[in-house]
Parts: sequence; C-alpha cells; structure tokens
Amino acid sequence: MSLQLPEKSVELGSARSVMRELFEYGKKRAAAVGAENVYDFSLGNPSVEPPAQVDECIRALLDAPQAASLHAYTSAQGDAGCRAAIAASLNRRFAAGAGADDLYLTVGAAASLTITFHALCCPGDEVLLLAPFFAEYRVFVEGAGAMPVVVPPHAPDFEPDAEAVRTALTPRTKAVVINSPNNPSGVVFSRETLEKLAAVLREKAAEYGHPIFLVTDEPYRELVFAGREAPWVPALYADTIVCYSYSKALSIPGERIGYIFVPQSAAEHDRVYAAVCGAGRKLGFVNAPALFQRVAAACDGVTVDVGIYERNAAFLCDALTALGFDCIPPQGTFYLFMKSPVPDAAAFCEKAKEFDLLLVPADSFSCPGWVRIAFCVPAEQLQRSLPAFEKLAQAFGLQK
Amino acid sequence: MSLQLPEKSVELGSARSVMRELFEYGKKRAAAVGAENVYDFSLGNPSVEPPAQVDECIRALLDAPQAASLHAYTSAQGDAGCRAAIAASLNRRFAAGAGADDLYLTVGAAASLTITFHALCCPGDEVLLLAPFFAEYRVFVEGAGAMPVVVPPHAPDFEPDAEAVRTALTPRTKAVVINSPNNPSGVVFSRETLEKLAAVLREKAAEYGHPIFLVTDEPYRELVFAGREAPWVPALYADTIVCYSYSKALSIPGERIGYIFVPQSAAEHDRVYAAVCGAGRKLGFVNAPALFQRVAAACDGVTVDVGIYERNAAFLCDALTALGFDCIPPQGTFYLFMKSPVPDAAAFCEKAKEFDLLLVPADSFSCPGWVRIAFCVPAEQLQRSLPAFEKLAQAFGLQK
Repeated sequence: MSLQLPEKSVELGSARSVMRELFEYGKKRAAAVGAENVYDFSLGNPSVEPPAQVDECIRALLDAPQAASLHAYTSAQGDAGCRAAIAASLNRRFAAGAGADDLYLTVGAAASLTITFHALCCPGDEVLLLAPFFAEYRVFVEGAGAMPVVVPPHAPDFEPDAEAVRTALTPRTKAVVINSPNNPSGVVFSRETLEKLAAVLREKAAEYGHPIFLVTDEPYRELVFAGREAPWVPALYADTIVCYSYSKALSIPGERIGYIFVPQSAAEHDRVYAAVCGAGRKLGFVNAPALFQRVAAACDGVTVDVGIYERNAAFLCDALTALGFDCIPPQGTFYLFMKSPVPDAAAFCEKAKEFDLLLVPADSFSCPGWVRIAFCVPAEQLQRSLPAFEKLAQAFGLQK
Repeated sequence: MSLQLPEKSVELGSARSVMRELFEYGKKRAAAVGAENVYDFSLGNPSVEPPAQVDECIRALLDAPQAASLHAYTSAQGDAGCRAAIAASLNRRFAAGAGADDLYLTVGAAASLTITFHALCCPGDEVLLLAPFFAEYRVFVEGAGAMPVVVPPHAPDFEPDAEAVRTALTPRTKAVVINSPNNPSGVVFSRETLEKLAAVLREKAAEYGHPIFLVTDEPYRELVFAGREAPWVPALYADTIVCYSYSKALSIPGERIGYIFVPQSAAEHDRVYAAVCGAGRKLGFVNAPALFQRVAAACDGVTVDVGIYERNAAFLCDALTALGFDCIPPQGTFYLFMKSPVPDAAAFCEKAKEFDLLLVPADSFSCPGWVRIAFCVPAEQLQRSLPAFEKLAQAFGLQK
C-alpha cells in the first residue's frame, strides 16, 4: 500500500513553527526541572491577565434572559449587533467611517489573514512581506496560492523602507502586508513612514492600472508605549484592509476572535467584501465563536494594563544593554529585538537553551542575526532570568 | 483601474448557501411580520437549550484558580489535558482505543472537514460524496483542490448503496464521505450498510494499492432515536477519519468546537495526523477556542434532551403524512425529509414561502425532488405551523 499525501501539509505539521517548537520544548523542560527554572520567552502568550471586563461580560451574558440563543449560530459575517457595536467603537476611536457591513468577524488574526489572502489573490499574484515579519505570513500567502516576495529588513530602525518596497513591486503585486506595532521588532511605524509607503503604492497602482492593497495586521494596535502613536492606516491609504485580533489587547489569544475591516474607501468594496465572505466559507470558518463575538463587541477599546509591558520593556532593555547586548528599545508590543552577538542567531539561541533561556532566532522572521524576546511574562520572571542572561553574555565574551 | 479577484471566492460570498439565504430571509421577514408568524425550518440552529452542564462548566472555569490561563493559547492540536479527557470519554463510550495524540481539536465540523480534505487530498484526487449530502461538502472538497464525485441517492431508504459506491470509485479516489445520522434525510445508516460499504472499500483499496479513507462527519452522532443505533465507524473500517462537532449534541453551534480523530488503525497514522496539523496551520486555525475546549472535554458524552427532537419528529411526520405529504420518518438528527409533490422542489419551496414556511429544497443536497425540514424549533411553533402546511397541501391538491 502506498499513500500520497500533500507533502506541504505533512511538512507543515511535522515541522512546527520555531515558536511553537520552543513553546512545546519549554513545557517539557518545565515538567523536568520546574516551571520556575525555565525562562520561556518564546511565544506571545500574554501572562498579563485579561481586563476584568472580559470575564464580567461572560458572566453577564450567561445571566441575561436571552442566554438561550447565546451559543447559537450567528450570521456568517458575525452577529449584526456585534458588528454594529464594533463599528461604532472604531468610529469613536478612529473616525473610521465604519458600518456593520464593512466588518467580517473571524477566528483571530491568523484567520483574518488567511481569509484576506484567499479573498484577494489569484494564481500568480505576489504579496510583499516586509522583513522582519511573522513567519506564518509566508505559510498563509502560499496556502492561498500566491507568491510571497520578501522586502529585506531596514536596520537599525526597522521601519519599512518605501523605496525598497518600490523596487519589489511588480504588476503582479496584489497586496503589501504591514504589521505595526511590529512583531518581532517591537517598532511602531511612524506616520511619516506610512505616508511615504502609501505614496509609493498610489503611484505604482496608478502605473499598473490596478489597486495594490495594504493589508495591515494589527493585533498589537493598542499595545503602544508612551510617546508613540499607531496611526489609523485606512485614513492614510484608501485600499487598506485591516486584519485585527483581540488576542493581545484583551489577553485572550486562545479564544480566537478578531475581524477583517474593509473600509468603504477600498477599491470595489462590495466585491472585495463578498470575496472575504466567500473565502471564509470555503475555508470552513462558518462564523466566529458566538460568545466571544459578544465579548469583543462589549470590550472593543478596552485594553490590558499596557504599563506592565512598558515597564517590562524598559527593565529588560536596560538590563540587557548593561550586559553588553545590542537591543532595539521596544515602542510597543511585548517583544524586544536583540542583535545576536554572533552572525548565527540560531546557534546563539541554542546556546541560550543551555541556560534554560528560550529565545527565538529571527531567521524565521526573515531577519537573520537578530533574536526575538517575548517579554509578556511576569516581571519577577524577568528579574530571575538575569543571571541566566549574564551567563549567556559571558559565554559570548560580551563586556559588562 | 481594474481589479482581478478569485471569482470563486466572490461567487461563494455573493451567493450564500441556500440555507443561509433562507435564514437571512427569515430574519428579515420576522422583522416585517413578527417572528411568531414566520415558520423558519431552514437552518439546523437548534432551539433546544444547551444542557445545564455547559453554562455550569463555563462558570466553574471562570471561578477556578487557574482562570488566568483560561483564555491563553493552547497547543495547536488542542490542550493536552482536554484531548486526553475526550479520548478517555471515547474509550468509555465506544472502546475507541483513542489517545490524546490521535485527536486534533477544531473550530467545529466545517473546520474538521476542510482540514481533513486539505490534509488528505493531492491535486487530481477524487472525493466521493453520497447524495443526499450537506451542500458545503462540495465547496470544501473543491477548496482543497480535489474533485467531488457524487454518488446518486438511493431512494426511498436513503442508505448508502455500496454497489453504487463501487461503480464511482476510481484509482484517484482518496476518500469517501459519509454522514450518519444524516443531514438532510434524517436516516441513521445501519450497521449492515456500513459493513457492506467497508467491504467494498477494502476490496478496492487492495486492488488500487492505496488506502481509501472513510471520512465520517458526525455532528449528529448523539441525536439518535429509539430503536436505532449509530455504530462506531472506526471499529468497522480501519482507514476511517472521524470529523466531529459538539454543535448539535450540546446545542452550541455558534461556539465552533469539534475535533478530528485519526485512529491508530488508520494507514500511516503519524503522517496523516501530521498532515492534519499542517493543514490546520496553513488554513489559519492556530488552536480551537480555548474556553470551549474545556467545555467539550468536560461535557463529552453529555447530550441535549433528544426526546424533544424525537417528539417533534413524530408529531411533524404524522401531521404531514395526514396532510398527504410523503415523508421519511426521521431516525435521528432534527431533519425531516419530505418528497416534493411536484418534481421541482425549488418551486414547491418558493410556494411555501407565500405561507411563511421556510423549507429547503434538497437540490443543493444533490437530491432533486425532495425537501428538508429542520424541526429543531419549539414544539408550539410546529403546532402553529400546521395551518400553513395545510394551505400548502391544498395549493398542490393533496388529499387529506
């Protein structure tokens, strides 16, 4: 008997993402030596508790008289009342001009992205990914039958370089993906950067005679530190599609709830929105989880205590810099981007595992030589990890 | 400016499924004439309340000390403890021989199916669909790049016809999909039928030199009426993949929670399971909703009051038969299959809309001339609908 399977699926299932691999390793290692002795900075699994409103909202929903229909199917694009509530919140916060029928609720950011790519991309289309970028973008773009095209990282500020984007654009470019606040760099793209990028896209779209969509992946939108702003992208570029998730703002990444926002300004809005609905249907999403649709609608704009992440960022950045490491001070998110002291960041992270420090080499973010540290962990874990970081610094001969 | 989009996605999003279309029509009509005057039998959106355990379980989880990690990411295939608990339940109930690593938790039955098809199917592969079948199977199979091959319905018992399956099998057949208890026919496939089917599949797999998977879609597994049994399919055929959802057993279809079970008996178990994980990753599922993973683990084997559906089935079947309609007595599920009194079932259902009766023509189930009535509605709505059914019978000149 021989069995032919789609090798891409087998391969994706056998080789987990580097983060997931480390996450699983960390769980096993914790079982072996005790959770308190493993410094797992691998996954963006926030330790900060959800805002009290989340569980309060769930209890209120369970107690409400309409509780019988609470767990029922909703419309495929999401409950109309929930979509209207989220639209109203976006309008209050960003003057988004959003209506309920511009929103499609999803099972989180990954679903927002896969649905968007399946909605937009025809065979042969190219999608620009600006390094450093979340490694799964490549999987999602290829899964939709399109071709990822990587724009190299722009160190040391790690803001997108509009001229590098211009060079990478071709008549086959269907979309450009941005992610700000950025995973893994912790950088929040400036308004000036986004305006330059928008200008290039407008110019090239006019030249090619077809729109180029700006797909903005924004799970970290609310995690912005003092002195920075994360501009509302659709206000800067008409053909924007917002892919959102409540995972990080509400510390509920396991619940898988987010949305796609197709602004009225986007080219052929109705046809694009229909394609989003069709792609969601084809991929088997049916409707976003019903209970958490209500939680999202009630809590849109509510945010975890960002100060906790901001303090972690400052503490870790200062401590690692003092140890001789070269860090990008985080402007948002809960990631610190650190230069590997040796060119091979994977080797550096392997060495770190000897001290039970789980760090992610940024090779999988298409940014070799850098390392991602997810500091969404308790502050005391950060403090306890410093001796391990010190040993790591010594192992690479760094100056204190 | 011209914009090329994947026309299939646009089309799927523009033309909703017939059921979803009727569901949306029913909501609009209810707003116009009052919900009590619309007899919506279109969608399998159960009115029977979830078992008390569901909300009790959620409250207990919110109150528990580990509540902080309740909404966190889980492993991609599902929380290991939840998978172990579900495996133990399947072993108690079906002697399934299941282990935690044979289960992959999903966002409901549609996701179970799309992930399975993306895990199994290579370009050019064929998947047999046994009419009548849930219309979206076709969308899911095509979405995975495979070719749906329809085996015609076997009236009037609507059990799969093993010899018709034999005729439809080719060396390119990767899988055969069955669904028992069946949507839309309400039939529960007998053990004898399944054994015959298994024998044909074994024979042809040996002839072709590669396994043929039996994908069994089982959201209605627990909704079986007195005097029938729904056999545990993996015990009858080794190369079975079970696609399950808790939507109907627990009346929580909006919450999107289910699983894929790859039994150890299945050909190349580990590679198939890896392909399932990889397909889920590629499609953007990340992990099944965390809170409801716990609910599923705690409630596996708990079932809504099936007696309510059984009484509805008997009442409706008797009443419609008395009006002169030709019905298949439901053996499970909450669907009644009725022969259209005219060959054009769509025309019949259009006529029914004049009496605010929303019925689904079974053309979209690849079973022309028949009609699906979803009787998962309050019993008093069934009673109140009878005058409308009587007018419908009269409109078609049926004998009382």
